[in-house]
Amino acid sequence: MRHSEAAITDWTESLGADKVDASEDTCGRYGRTLLPSGTTPCCVLQPDSEEEVQSLVQIAQKHGQAIYPISGGKNWGYGDACAPVAQAAIVDLSAMNRILKIDAVMGYAVIEPGVTQQQLYEAVQAEAPEFWVDVTGAGPNATVVGNAVERGFGHTPYGDHVRSTCGMNVVLPDGRLLKTGFGHFPGNKTEHHYPYGVGPILDGLFSQSNLGIVTRIGIWLCPKPEAFSFFLIKVPDEEGLSETVEALRPLRMQGVLNSAVHIGNDLRIFTSLDTYPWDVADGETPLPDSLRKKMRAETKLGAWNVTGSLTGTSAQVREARRRLKRASSHLGSIVFVNDKKLALGQWVASRLHRVGLGKALVKNIEALVPNYGLLKGVPTDMPLQSLAWRLRTPLSEAIKDPLDTNVGLMWLAPVLPLRGDDAAKLMRLVGPLFCEFGFDLPVTLTMLNERSMVAVMNISFDKSEADEAGRAQACYDQATQRLLAHGYIPYRSSLAGMGHLVEPGDVFWEVTQDIKSALDPAGILAPGRYIPL
Amino acid sequence: MRHSEAAITDWTESLGADKVDASEDTCGRYGRTLLPSGTTPCCVLQPDSEEEVQSLVQIAQKHGQAIYPISGGKNWGYGDACAPVAQAAIVDLSAMNRILKIDAVMGYAVIEPGVTQQQLYEAVQAEAPEFWVDVTGAGPNATVVGNAVERGFGHTPYGDHVRSTCGMNVVLPDGRLLKTGFGHFPGNKTEHHYPYGVGPILDGLFSQSNLGIVTRIGIWLCPKPEAFSFFLIKVPDEEGLSETVEALRPLRMQGVLNSAVHIGNDLRIFTSLDTYPWDVADGETPLPDSLRKKMRAETKLGAWNVTGSLTGTSAQVREARRRLKRASSHLGSIVFVNDKKLALGQWVASRLHRVGLGKALVKNIEALVPNYGLLKGVPTDMPLQSLAWRLRTPLSEAIKDPLDTNVGLMWLAPVLPLRGDDAAKLMRLVGPLFCEFGFDLPVTLTMLNERSMVAVMNISFDKSEADEAGRAQACYDQATQRLLAHGYIPYRSSLAGMGHLVEPGDVFWEVTQDIKSALDPAGILAPGRYIPL
Repeated sequence: MRHSEAAITDWTESLGADKVDASEDTCGRYGRTLLPSGTTPCCVLQPDSEEEVQSLVQIAQKHGQAIYPISGGKNWGYGDACAPVAQAAIVDLSAMNRILKIDAVMGYAVIEPGVTQQQLYEAVQAEAPEFWVDVTGAGPNATVVGNAVERGFGHTPYGDHVRSTCGMNVVLPDGRLLKTGFGHFPGNKTEHHYPYGVGPILDGLFSQSNLGIVTRIGIWLCPKPEAFSFFLIKVPDEEGLSETVEALRPLRMQGVLNSAVHIGNDLRIFTSLDTYPWDVADGETPLPDSLRKKMRAETKLGAWNVTGSLTGTSAQVREARRRLKRASSHLGSIVFVNDKKLALGQWVASRLHRVGLGKALVKNIEALVPNYGLLKGVPTDMPLQSLAWRLRTPLSEAIKDPLDTNVGLMWLAPVLPLRGDDAAKLMRLVGPLFCEFGFDLPVTLTMLNERSMVAVMNISFDKSEADEAGRAQACYDQATQRLLAHGYIPYRSSLAGMGHLVEPGDVFWEVTQDIKSALDPAGILAPGRYIPL
Repeated sequence: MRHSEAAITDWTESLGADKVDASEDTCGRYGRTLLPSGTTPCCVLQPDSEEEVQSLVQIAQKHGQAIYPISGGKNWGYGDACAPVAQAAIVDLSAMNRILKIDAVMGYAVIEPGVTQQQLYEAVQAEAPEFWVDVTGAGPNATVVGNAVERGFGHTPYGDHVRSTCGMNVVLPDGRLLKTGFGHFPGNKTEHHYPYGVGPILDGLFSQSNLGIVTRIGIWLCPKPEAFSFFLIKVPDEEGLSETVEALRPLRMQGVLNSAVHIGNDLRIFTSLDTYPWDVADGETPLPDSLRKKMRAETKLGAWNVTGSLTGTSAQVREARRRLKRASSHLGSIVFVNDKKLALGQWVASRLHRVGLGKALVKNIEALVPNYGLLKGVPTDMPLQSLAWRLRTPLSEAIKDPLDTNVGLMWLAPVLPLRGDDAAKLMRLVGPLFCEFGFDLPVTLTMLNERSMVAVMNISFDKSEADEAGRAQACYDQATQRLLAHGYIPYRSSLAGMGHLVEPGDVFWEVTQDIKSALDPAGILAPGRYIPL
């Protein structure tokens, strides 16, 4: 405690009182989490420049005071704005929200960590209209950098955010400023054009770690394709999953499918359409099988629903459509939607709506538009709404910040080989566990590259229900361990799960600790984040 | 010297006498280089397993003896098999040449460092015929791992070898074995499917560095496309370069061009067709302008010649052809060649040949076939032949190992933004320098990604000519410094150039030194390689 008080005094002197907040109220606010439990910081710092970050880091060093950087704190369900250890000083970078450059010819932006998805989207629309920003479903207010350093993924051909980041500025734990790639060569011409530089590639050290504070990145924008088509394949049977994966892999391998393809189960979509049907289910959880089938029939959904986009020249998209149709004909029905068709549907729906008809069409279109938009890099807070699924008390308005609600959320995100057998096995491993603990299992299998997919599954719970948080944690722990035991390792972890990833004597973690000791011997930066203490 | 003798004694005991060779003959052989000067080692070690590498590293640590790993030592013109410092023990990994796995469904191979391009090519042909190996022009005997850890590039859609490497085993300088990505999780299913693992990404540390010995990698194979077409655009005027780059960038951005596209000047092709016309040029260097134009006319080449491949489904390739034709019509003439057309040409040539006609056609086809093959991942030693360009005495047979000849070679490989202006500026910066020093300037601009290109330029000289090596070194140094001063940084460096890259006080190199000290405090592993001493 002495540490933090002395550090706060120095920070106040150095940054100014308006950028240091140690009030109980603020600390409580930053300590909120969607996980079953969080940590309360000792104060919150709000630097607005790289220099201020450098100087506050040096003060932290002087006092041996733990600090924890967040870009916006919207790491929903992975720890939110919370540090792994209590009483850290949160370094909130959201005031560093300048877009430093948009290159409308070469298609990249250079941004600070506080820049939100919506902000970059609007700037690119205005200044580089021939490009898209690849965004995630974390909402308009989530930051671009926060997702990139967590190695998140989006929905366009630039969905792999590791591959679309090029050139970083990093404030090291001792206050030095590192420029990666070619960035450290004065006057270099290709800092944001070529990602590897010369000599070892250091960028990877600064994602999913605690080795530096990323204060600036170059991010590649996705060239707007000449043509675009959304597709939806509805696979009627639950057992159709394996076959679906097998049918799509060759198309992904051959580049006919070149962006993130999502295979979501019915529950993934139910959760986005409405909240849990407590009445009809008579309070029982998870969703009874008969009711689930009924809902599936009513919403005309498949047990599995494949969505994605085809992009390219008009002829290329036509060809991709033909190939996809042919490859998926045995799986179920397929629908293609392009801008023209969507506009037509909206027009028809609006006409029908006026005369009191077409409620189903309106609802379907309402659900479709944001997902359709995501595939073109338009931010939306629609996916956030699905977090309300298990709330007992309906919300009066749409979720903007899930921390303002009783939403509880834990993600499981194991990586699987892009094979049908593995997809089927995953369901057998995890399904019964979720059931046992009374949770529904919404799943999306996202083909991240030509050889793997991430299964994104979440435990949704209601924090106002006394026992649900405990059951969520137990279900999460057991599912994580079961998946690890079967070789399905998560691509990313919440604060609640990092401990599961570390076995004593694992050279990998030892090496990360060696590097941590070299760059941050006192361990002041985000102690406990990924790299074990 | 005491160090090395004691270490050699221990190595001999540990590995066996047949794997340790300190003879003058062997050391002399490994000390040969295509650069103006090399270094002679104290001995050569030839481990044949990961365990042997671990144990020899520990012995090096015990004695503080420098070791220098090579996969096959075919790093032509970048230092070959030579260490940056004299009297290092060369660790020649060429006996570790097992192909540990080829997955014919998921399209990857797991290989040891000694595996050659030819070896992997043949194994993939046999076991995974639906895939290609992406190879470089370094010849059938060059290793795959050596190129990957130097971040080389090839010619297919999998040409970026950083992106197509997935999962590494690395022996650290203290003998520990590190598995990157998901590899360190026992029983993991996705070590070679998903490259990033969870926690920081360490792979980048082990390319272009001296932080570990890569003993195994996973390498993604390129799915054989349904259709393939080679293209050649001949741009008549030297001044057409800028326009050419500008015309091709949108196609690369839009994914119409999806593999490495090369823009080579006439000299790049002359050097591959024949040796320097000493007689006609009357001993003068570089090639006189009038003669150069005459040769260009005779060979029917452009001042710039764009080559690459179109791959995809038949309809996609048709579309790409149409687009490329349209976009390049103002640049010059364009030719497409596919397997059918090539076979026809070969058939016609063989007929004409029998009756003593069509010599030009035969020669053109002979020159075309290997380059055509490279675009499909067929190794060839054709590009090695161009190294003979400046030899005064013609060779009696084709070059297999350039070290057996008088070939001298230094590469310059700066990265440029993918912009016409930069390409033109490059030629203005470097052209006059080469001329001044009496060297020809063969250039290939390779579009590595959507935003950058590498200009591959080489100084070819004859080591038997007393003064040429000195002039080559001077030309190299001046050109490198000039390029650096203008912000064009090399993507890779030879031993002769690493010093140019380091300025005192550069935090980037400081951080690499911090990591080096953490992992290799005594500095026994490849001291002086990229990371400054």
